[in-house]
Amino acid sequence: MITHPAYMVEPWCLRETELNLDVLSQSESVFALSNGHIGWRGNLDEGEPHGLPGTYLNGVYEFRPLPYAEAGYGYPESGQTIINVTNGKLIRLLVDDEPFDLRYGKLHRHERVLDFRTGLLHRTAEWTSPSGRSVRVRSSRLVSFTQRAIAAVSYEVEPLDGDVRIVVQSELVANEQLPLTTRDPRAAAVLESPLAVEHHAAHGPRIRLLHRTEHSGLRVGVSASHVVSGGEKTEMSSESSDNLARFTITTRLRSGQRLRVEKFVAHGWSAIRSAPAVHDQVDAALAAAVSTGWQGLADEQSDYLENFWSRSDVEVDGDAEIQQAARFALFHVLQAGARGEARALPAKGLTGPGYDGHCFWDTETFVLPVLTYTAPQAVEQALRWRYSTLPAARERARQLGLEGAAFPWRTINGDECSGYWPAGTAAFHINADIADAAVRYTKATNDEAFEKEVGLPLLVETARLWRSLGHHDHHGDFHIDGVTGPDEYSAISDDNTYTNLMAQHNLQEAAAVVERHPDLAALLGADDEEAATWRDAATRMTLPYNPELAVHEQSEGFTRHQLWDFAGTGDDEYPLMLHFPYFDLYRKQVAKQADLVLAMCLRGDAFTPEEKAANFAYYERLTVRDSSLSACGQAVMAAETGHMRLAYDYLGEAAMMDLSDLQGNTRDGIHIASLAGTWFALVIGFGGMREYDGLIAFTPRLPEQLGRLAFTVQFRGQRLRVEITGSTATYSLLDGKALEIRHCGERLRVTSDAPESCQVPPIPTGPAPEQPAGRAPARRGRAPGHSEG
Amino acid sequence: MITHPAYMVEPWCLRETELNLDVLSQSESVFALSNGHIGWRGNLDEGEPHGLPGTYLNGVYEFRPLPYAEAGYGYPESGQTIINVTNGKLIRLLVDDEPFDLRYGKLHRHERVLDFRTGLLHRTAEWTSPSGRSVRVRSSRLVSFTQRAIAAVSYEVEPLDGDVRIVVQSELVANEQLPLTTRDPRAAAVLESPLAVEHHAAHGPRIRLLHRTEHSGLRVGVSASHVVSGGEKTEMSSESSDNLARFTITTRLRSGQRLRVEKFVAHGWSAIRSAPAVHDQVDAALAAAVSTGWQGLADEQSDYLENFWSRSDVEVDGDAEIQQAARFALFHVLQAGARGEARALPAKGLTGPGYDGHCFWDTETFVLPVLTYTAPQAVEQALRWRYSTLPAARERARQLGLEGAAFPWRTINGDECSGYWPAGTAAFHINADIADAAVRYTKATNDEAFEKEVGLPLLVETARLWRSLGHHDHHGDFHIDGVTGPDEYSAISDDNTYTNLMAQHNLQEAAAVVERHPDLAALLGADDEEAATWRDAATRMTLPYNPELAVHEQSEGFTRHQLWDFAGTGDDEYPLMLHFPYFDLYRKQVAKQADLVLAMCLRGDAFTPEEKAANFAYYERLTVRDSSLSACGQAVMAAETGHMRLAYDYLGEAAMMDLSDLQGNTRDGIHIASLAGTWFALVIGFGGMREYDGLIAFTPRLPEQLGRLAFTVQFRGQRLRVEITGSTATYSLLDGKALEIRHCGERLRVTSDAPESCQVPPIPTGPAPEQPAGRAPARRGRAPGHSEG
Repeated sequence: MITHPAYMVEPWCLRETELNLDVLSQSESVFALSNGHIGWRGNLDEGEPHGLPGTYLNGVYEFRPLPYAEAGYGYPESGQTIINVTNGKLIRLLVDDEPFDLRYGKLHRHERVLDFRTGLLHRTAEWTSPSGRSVRVRSSRLVSFTQRAIAAVSYEVEPLDGDVRIVVQSELVANEQLPLTTRDPRAAAVLESPLAVEHHAAHGPRIRLLHRTEHSGLRVGVSASHVVSGGEKTEMSSESSDNLARFTITTRLRSGQRLRVEKFVAHGWSAIRSAPAVHDQVDAALAAAVSTGWQGLADEQSDYLENFWSRSDVEVDGDAEIQQAARFALFHVLQAGARGEARALPAKGLTGPGYDGHCFWDTETFVLPVLTYTAPQAVEQALRWRYSTLPAARERARQLGLEGAAFPWRTINGDECSGYWPAGTAAFHINADIADAAVRYTKATNDEAFEKEVGLPLLVETARLWRSLGHHDHHGDFHIDGVTGPDEYSAISDDNTYTNLMAQHNLQEAAAVVERHPDLAALLGADDEEAATWRDAATRMTLPYNPELAVHEQSEGFTRHQLWDFAGTGDDEYPLMLHFPYFDLYRKQVAKQADLVLAMCLRGDAFTPEEKAANFAYYERLTVRDSSLSACGQAVMAAETGHMRLAYDYLGEAAMMDLSDLQGNTRDGIHIASLAGTWFALVIGFGGMREYDGLIAFTPRLPEQLGRLAFTVQFRGQRLRVEITGSTATYSLLDGKALEIRHCGERLRVTSDAPESCQVPPIPTGPAPEQPAGRAPARRGRAPGHSEG
Repeated sequence: MITHPAYMVEPWCLRETELNLDVLSQSESVFALSNGHIGWRGNLDEGEPHGLPGTYLNGVYEFRPLPYAEAGYGYPESGQTIINVTNGKLIRLLVDDEPFDLRYGKLHRHERVLDFRTGLLHRTAEWTSPSGRSVRVRSSRLVSFTQRAIAAVSYEVEPLDGDVRIVVQSELVANEQLPLTTRDPRAAAVLESPLAVEHHAAHGPRIRLLHRTEHSGLRVGVSASHVVSGGEKTEMSSESSDNLARFTITTRLRSGQRLRVEKFVAHGWSAIRSAPAVHDQVDAALAAAVSTGWQGLADEQSDYLENFWSRSDVEVDGDAEIQQAARFALFHVLQAGARGEARALPAKGLTGPGYDGHCFWDTETFVLPVLTYTAPQAVEQALRWRYSTLPAARERARQLGLEGAAFPWRTINGDECSGYWPAGTAAFHINADIADAAVRYTKATNDEAFEKEVGLPLLVETARLWRSLGHHDHHGDFHIDGVTGPDEYSAISDDNTYTNLMAQHNLQEAAAVVERHPDLAALLGADDEEAATWRDAATRMTLPYNPELAVHEQSEGFTRHQLWDFAGTGDDEYPLMLHFPYFDLYRKQVAKQADLVLAMCLRGDAFTPEEKAANFAYYERLTVRDSSLSACGQAVMAAETGHMRLAYDYLGEAAMMDLSDLQGNTRDGIHIASLAGTWFALVIGFGGMREYDGLIAFTPRLPEQLGRLAFTVQFRGQRLRVEITGSTATYSLLDGKALEIRHCGERLRVTSDAPESCQVPPIPTGPAPEQPAGRAPARRGRAPGHSEG
């Protein structure tokens, strides 16, 4: 956890005003740049000191064995791990005869700024070497949203106290030495030297490395070129070897002179293209980038982001930290998804090796909803990736003795990588989560081509999975037994309510899509008879309920189980999974994360307001939030049940997950889903936004700490701006002619002519729910007194 | 499976009349000799051909890592594996210039006989070498019951067609090369070269090797000496090196002459004694054995067994194969337990490396009951071993957040070795099984010293475990949630009926023992108050029952689950665990082995006759018997519910488990518990023997295929012989003055004056229960037409 204020609170950027080696790894994650294809961690230009060097290409992984003390049928034997590919960030500097290394000499000033509007990461360092020579280094870095293969650096050195001899080495480095991995299973397995060289070259300012992974057989090419200006008696040379290509600039700088190096780095990889093809591909991308130039790339980046913010910005009055965090979150969610293009969207984006670079259910459940209403093309791409893995998912279903498709719990290439089936294979809800994301995207975009090509097969095959996974009992009720819901402190339960409700929706929507496209469905062998069996199962879906307690059960029998001994659990015993066996967690009433509460968030139509209030209060007492995926769902349901202060506190937790490193593992990459949860809490929670039956609906309600909340969402090609104050909600249509919505249950037609203002009714509330001892969310105080620059 | 008749059917021995290389591994297991301390597999004297060479010392293991694809709190990181120690069986033979290897030349005759009355394994081979020289080799082998450290071989060679030059090499070999392990998780991990040499020596006929295991640090010493007679111009020499000590005899034999070598092998090991101490220990044992001589050892062995059979024999008329199998079973059960002396009694005894040489619950549940009534001192020793591991079990309970002691699911040294917690740690019933064995032994022997020293702490600490593992719900009912019962095709269930009933008994008996010995209990901190909480829990123990189906549930919700698709499961898809994921098995109604049925067998007092009949019929339809532990419990309940033909067939399955290799893994060692199950089926099933409230009771009933069943049991130092025919049961007291028993529910006093004969009432029966398609036990035909020698 980052316990001191690490970053300044500003609305449009993240600023670090001093270099703190204690949180270097964390800052490398939060300052990471990505376009969804390339990920550059916020490592210092000169490479060291570092927490964890990281350069990632989406889809580039190596296999690793998954060992078992006792093997079993259907256990995956090989997993996939994201690998640190060739590092193109490196620019080393020699000042006179001493390397620019901030651990030595004296650092007078060090500032880094991640600008959410320009997409650039800026750095300024003023440093005196151990021998007394002072220089200022300024660098800016971008990973281009517009030129997908390109990242670039602008690097400037100037002397601060007279002439100095400068050597700059701009490098490409493969197989960097990585710090040892921890025992924390959430961290990545370190693979030593995953890249085997195929080619290296250096021609003047152009350097290139081409490698291949040993087992996965992926070819990775990186080329760089440079534009140099400034300095006197400048000499340049380049050289290359197996794991290093280097461009060296030697020069003298007088007072007032600057050496400026613009570095363009092109990345490419392929599983099937030949070495010359990959080689040419990166060179071509590089040529285009060099032609665009640094300023051209920076301008394109700004334009891209201006467009993004016009579609997606969230404005918050009354809590500057939340305002910043909301934009930080949206920026990183965009970075993770923008240019993934039919590759997975990993849990950590491309900001670190955490969770082995795997994609889980949280992409579809938390990240894609945000992108659906802000950058829907990214959702289409992410779901096209899922669709591309359908053959593997069908094969996995066969292996498990099931019909349809069983998508993997964690994966990079579409094959299951989960080595612990009770919390992997058994968590079948991911299939409904994928189906749900496809339905949401289709309803929000009316993208019929997508529905026919991608949505229909995804829905049909997941519906088949549910139909074969569940069964009707002899009373006709439909049960799904022995599965694991979102809560990872329960497993292998019967009739998990979240799973059953999501499966119900999946079955219903699959039946509907077959009805809409009977000819296409027929190509998959689906017909009215099959769809009828899905409707039957959905209609008779079991939802366990405890009438004595008057609450729904997370799963059958859950509320009869022993309560976890929260009073006897010390603060230092969280997260519980590191201090108690799964055995004990599974059989008691304790929830790692929102499960039934998330079901109420995503399937609010299945519960009455009274049930929501009772259920929320009951499960609040059991939920310890050892998962970063919990707070946002709790924020939404706290808001819906009228507990605005609590919702506000949960918003704070979701928003500060990485900026304050609340889970203690931001070093391994940021939590994309929790960041998406910031938007969830604000837009779905306080905006009260839902989508039912093809209409978006709002039930706005603000906590008293926030004076105003405004956000823009896209729906069917139209942009709607929503502005909420304590008493009024104003809806403005920014694009399009007219849009029918709901406000607090009433239909409302918004046109481009004029905004519509509506009263926000007062919020009914009951007694505040309680959390387990010591597990209430941090109480948000007034916003910290930093500048709002 | 052994599909051809491999062994002759004879009442007092197991005879193999030809060498069949296809079933060599299996025969090595069934011909294994052991005294519970030393185990010698039935490898050929000359070492090759072999299936699996094996020499074991009880308690000698090596650590091996237990890897996990995803680690978790409380997972054991290190397991234990039984190792193949120094082989003292080896006697190689050179006939003229060719090695005696049965794979070459011509084998005219090969016979092996395991004699249950003498405890000797005899072998005769008549062989012509490739170059045409013929010899007869006769050997006999024993592992002494009376001299615990000693095994011995008598080895004779004689020429069959004129003079021959003979070289005999009698060896001790460490770190034998072993065949590669299979992927079957039930087989042992092969550890290459587990023994590091500390000392080797050869002095005339005496040879010695001393090794140490690397990680477990166990010192293993083996010494051998030889007595040689016969032959002309005999020369003898010996030599030793790191892994080989060899005594070589060179001689010439004329027609009619024989070379005879008597080999005495002393084994010893220690975790704490120094090399010289272990060295001396084996030499001392060797000296005693040499002094006793071969014939002396053989005589002691016969005497020991004569005594054993007088206390334990089971006679069966009408099925010669069962008669043989019953004695084979008792012989091997004795071998496994006789001289274990405060070491574990492994699932395979010391007959092979299967299950890594681990001890499981089946020792207490199946093996110890047999020994309780036939060789009770072995039970005392086995439970003293459990008691010796109480500190580790207490520590494990602490680690799991529980009170009392949590005994390991599988272990050699007392530490948990299970690498799959849903079928390991979660199978807490082992604790009640241990308590049950202690109670049974105490009631059968009145061994008060044992109760005070061993029984009381075992009962108190296991009762504490149950009290902390379970909880009272708000109606006061006591539940034990999230545990795994005997059936390994279910896991992590609430209120497993077997577990709850065994825990109930455990809690009641613990309360009773605290009441009997309050002062001793106080030393453990146990008092009336604590005992009252145990009684409360026992009184309010939940037993799930489905009133609609009118059957008990194996665990809460079990009977509501989907039925396994037996009709759609092919014969080649058994055992199911090798063809279907645990995920699928766990959530459906399918039982690997008797679970509720075993509960009815061990806690018959908890069910009415009608319930037994209904439950038995219900679970018969679900039980596939992929476990060797299933048939005997089903035999018992089939007999009790009047299905005598079915009981007889199940008896056949239990009895022939290893003789016909029904599970296909007899190569890795015989199934001691299934062998014990033969006795279960005969004595508990057909004898109807139960023990309630300190009385043994009989409800005899024979299947029509058996004309007579007679058996002897020990109870409180008295021997009772029971002889049952179709219509009469006769009780004879062989030792002691008088014994009160029950016959068919009526009290009966048997005195030494005269046998008591009673009528056996006719057996009420209902419709025959059905088994899953293809999973009915093999129908026993008339006994095969082999000689009854």
